[in-house]
Amino acid sequence: MDSASLICDLARQFYDLGWVTGTGGGICIREGDHVIVAPSAVQKERMTPEQMFTLAIDGTVIRRPADPTLRPSDCSSLFMTAIRLRDAGAVIHSHSIHAVMATLLFDREFVISNLEMIKGIEGMNYYDQLVVPIIENTARECDLTASLEEAIRAYPKTHAVLVRRHGVYVWGRDWVQAKTQAECYDYLFRAAAEMHRLGVTAKGVTDASLPSRSADAFVRRR
Amino acid sequence: MDSASLICDLARQFYDLGWVTGTGGGICIREGDHVIVAPSAVQKERMTPEQMFTLAIDGTVIRRPADPTLRPSDCSSLFMTAIRLRDAGAVIHSHSIHAVMATLLFDREFVISNLEMIKGIEGMNYYDQLVVPIIENTARECDLTASLEEAIRAYPKTHAVLVRRHGVYVWGRDWVQAKTQAECYDYLFRAAAEMHRLGVTAKGVTDASLPSRSADAFVRRR
Amino acid sequence: MDSASLICDLARQFYDLGWVTGTGGGICIREGDHVIVAPSAVQKERMTPEQMFTLAIDGTVIRRPADPTLRPSDCSSLFMTAIRLRDAGAVIHSHSIHAVMATLLFDREFVISNLEMIKGIEGMNYYDQLVVPIIENTARECDLTASLEEAIRAYPKTHAVLVRRHGVYVWGRDWVQAKTQAECYDYLFRAAAEMHRLGVTAKGVTDASLPSRSADAFVRRR
Amino acid sequence: MDSASLICDLARQFYDLGWVTGTGGGICIREGDHVIVAPSAVQKERMTPEQMFTLAIDGTVIRRPADPTLRPSDCSSLFMTAIRLRDAGAVIHSHSIHAVMATLLFDREFVISNLEMIKGIEGMNYYDQLVVPIIENTARECDLTASLEEAIRAYPKTHAVLVRRHGVYVWGRDWVQAKTQAECYDYLFRAAAEMHRLGVTAKGVTDASLPSRSADAFVRRR
Repeated sequence: MDSASLICDLARQFYDLGWVTGTGGGICIREGDHVIVAPSAVQKERMTPEQMFTLAIDGTVIRRPADPTLRPSDCSSLFMTAIRLRDAGAVIHSHSIHAVMATLLFDREFVISNLEMIKGIEGMNYYDQLVVPIIENTARECDLTASLEEAIRAYPKTHAVLVRRHGVYVWGRDWVQAKTQAECYDYLFRAAAEMHRLGVTAKGVTDASLPSRSADAFVRRR
Repeated sequence: MDSASLICDLARQFYDLGWVTGTGGGICIREGDHVIVAPSAVQKERMTPEQMFTLAIDGTVIRRPADPTLRPSDCSSLFMTAIRLRDAGAVIHSHSIHAVMATLLFDREFVISNLEMIKGIEGMNYYDQLVVPIIENTARECDLTASLEEAIRAYPKTHAVLVRRHGVYVWGRDWVQAKTQAECYDYLFRAAAEMHRLGVTAKGVTDASLPSRSADAFVRRR
Repeated sequence: MDSASLICDLARQFYDLGWVTGTGGGICIREGDHVIVAPSAVQKERMTPEQMFTLAIDGTVIRRPADPTLRPSDCSSLFMTAIRLRDAGAVIHSHSIHAVMATLLFDREFVISNLEMIKGIEGMNYYDQLVVPIIENTARECDLTASLEEAIRAYPKTHAVLVRRHGVYVWGRDWVQAKTQAECYDYLFRAAAEMHRLGVTAKGVTDASLPSRSADAFVRRR
Repeated sequence: MDSASLICDLARQFYDLGWVTGTGGGICIREGDHVIVAPSAVQKERMTPEQMFTLAIDGTVIRRPADPTLRPSDCSSLFMTAIRLRDAGAVIHSHSIHAVMATLLFDREFVISNLEMIKGIEGMNYYDQLVVPIIENTARECDLTASLEEAIRAYPKTHAVLVRRHGVYVWGRDWVQAKTQAECYDYLFRAAAEMHRLGVTAKGVTDASLPSRSADAFVRRR
């Protein structure tokens, strides 16, 4: 499947997951030094390959769809930041309510450990502390670029940056890894909220039965 | 796709979102001075284009389906109110449980700000306070018409009116905007309840890290 | 679509709603004095029309599938009770977790009022108090027959009977009404739990803005 | 349908249930003394039959897919443990968030009784106490094998073993029973959390109306 068709296919899947409702969110896939990007403000679950843009990594439009009303995704400069700084092959931007709630439960970093799904993030093991930086939202999406770049540089091991009250950006070396990691992060954001709702804390579940390493605070709440 | 087929297609999507179960809810699409309306009290996820009614904006039936047992949606006079007062191209009525819960958490207005999805509502920015008026439910749907009209006039910037313990009416200049806004409103209603369940308040998440504007109460609870 | 195919189609839909997972739950459709019933203990979302049984209303097997390992649904005698006593054209048995939670939040009756979806139940209006009797579960499904019959006789206006820690039986004059009512009841069971979780009570939401009638306790908790 | 195609089909279904997102989880099906196993670290909802491995019960690879980058599921030695010790015909490994939350609400055993869905587990009746052992997670999946074997031996009646902060392994005599039981267990894990969130305890719902047997603690919390 070509990248344009794949973006449409993935966007339908992300719609069902609640990541891109209301025309929000998006995805881009890199092909060498070109990047295929969806248009802005369209229904993500009803896109067609002919609506896609091709951009250079510096953001220049190389090929645009026939429909003159379309413009490239507002996320484009953010997508390019992850591509340039991390050599990402694909970037996913989700408005998942789980990501947004994570930014309300945590302060400057989302921190979690001792959950199997952490292993779905490259370089992470079960006992590792997964840290996702949280940047503050801005009125215009493009104004996030500087703080996204700063967070990516400050957290060299992260594959995602949360945006307060907005969502999350996740990337990977190719679309498969970007999607896998986006699913793992989303699961972990949801798990943190479920634990909070159930009143489960590190203390509450670690006394006799868990190995000593997991007695460390597994979750750092505000 | 013609409007009658589109209504059937959208209704299946809304069924999956939980907006139109139990034959509840509905949608209409305007074509010039005609309005295509679904029949009342039928399974919304199993409708066919031949079951649709065509009404004039004053509510007169212009074309009716062959099946003599069908009657136009109970929402028709409410749909026409939004069409007349706001020049709407489509109106969606949802029984989403998130909309109903929003009417139980808030008093006369649903108020929220500082969430990215607010930007999906026409004319709204991230820091703006989104206000949705809540009108009281009545025993018969048509008896809502006067208070809906009153709310639309009293809140010139709103694109939706909540009905206590019932659901929400959302409109837009065309079906795409009506659907996009309906998805954004639903997300925001759900987000308010999730925040409430997580014990997250304006105070709880705004101290050092958030910009000063967001220190304003972002949510006005009863 | 013939009744056997329709049962398979509806069962797939009910599986997606979480009503018939783990081979639980079921549905029957009456055709005159015959009743088409699904087999017991099969995956409800993967049934085929050839697997259906035809029973007389007294429970006698009139036609059975070729597969000799199949036996008619354990719910059959309960289905027949609703058919005989209420002249039902279809009966749905759901294991929805919302129904089960309703039986844990309420004692002998599930009671709710002032929700629009109540109007989806035949004979009910918005301000009416909807009452669903709750019977105690038994070790064997067939042993529920006597108490189901008793509940149906004791509550002449009900179209459903909840079974504690088990699920719900819902019927209607035909499959469309049975399904519509099953969806409305499920919505109301879920709404009651959501209100409970949000700490919303009759008192909490009715002071100035609601009409005086709704100041009555809308929900009777244990 | 051959086993390889069936695994792909079931994996898509499990993806929709939230059991195998982020390439997590898995399933194997035995054919005599061979076992068909999915590859490790691939998107479970997008697998094709040509990607499957055939292993002997001792874990030897008998047939491998053409793609040289694939390796058999990390769960393989765990799958084989259930197959050897219980003569299982299929084993399902789920990362369902409900399973993970169950391991946080309970200590060394998940215990529940008096829910109809318990009857979906072989050998269990409604009033029986269903016990699922919980083993501690390890950094590497294969290191779970010894404690899984120990739990299976220590709990001769169980058809599942929970893994703390990780998920659950469920088996059955064939794929149908394994899947049915996996759905029932998942429902029960979710029900326990819902009861916890609703503040429903054995005491809270058993006084006059329930039969005396159900007055026993139905749920043993930490």
